[in-house]
Amino acid sequence: MAAADRLSETFAALADPTRRAILARLALGETSVTDLAEPFDMSLPAVSKHLKVLERAGLIVRGREAQWRPCRLDPSPLKEVDGWVEHYRQFWEKSFDRLDEYLRVLQTKEKKRGPRKSK
Amino acid sequence: MAAADRLSETFAALADPTRRAILARLALGETSVTDLAEPFDMSLPAVSKHLKVLERAGLIVRGREAQWRPCRLDPSPLKEVDGWVEHYRQFWEKSFDRLDEYLRVLQTKEKKRGPRKSK
Repeated sequence: MAAADRLSETFAALADPTRRAILARLALGETSVTDLAEPFDMSLPAVSKHLKVLERAGLIVRGREAQWRPCRLDPSPLKEVDGWVEHYRQFWEKSFDRLDEYLRVLQTKEKKRGPRKSK
Repeated sequence: MAAADRLSETFAALADPTRRAILARLALGETSVTDLAEPFDMSLPAVSKHLKVLERAGLIVRGREAQWRPCRLDPSPLKEVDGWVEHYRQFWEKSFDRLDEYLRVLQTKEKKRGPRKSK
């Protein structure tokens, strides 16, 4: 798959709060589908559907054991998301720099004015 | 909108290579829809459709001038994506640490063995 399409598939898979919650759970360690389903108050087929989307996007890997198919997080697609969003980081870091500069100007003014008189 | 749903909308808007290309173009500066459409070999209505998705997700802001409605990038939703993906950064940073450690072990072995004999 082209890198661009892979990224689209990753973003599409992440565009759902339940799927993001599943990833957050798997970040703590691998677990069974039954244990994954528990906190969501969802049917197993509904959870399985979400897992299939995550698996297709390469965000999770599932064990091949017949009885217990543990799910594990695969962070590689998230690393690509991180790499993509990095190009835009300059925008808020710049804003932060401007805020920082503004605060410095305020502090300088404050110092020039001297300590405030107490009432 | 709840923060979780906003994030879902952002991810859904980013799940398209053309929309990501539009954002990359806007990262260079605000521009008109006509100029935006040019490199994509797309009809203006097709581009407008993408812009509407980006606008709804808060990723772009459009000017209100009747003749020229410049598009501008709004990085705030991307900052949220960055904040979200940050929680997973430990996974590849850990792998990197392991690689780093492995390289150190290799170098130590190399030193113990001494310089290679030239043939």
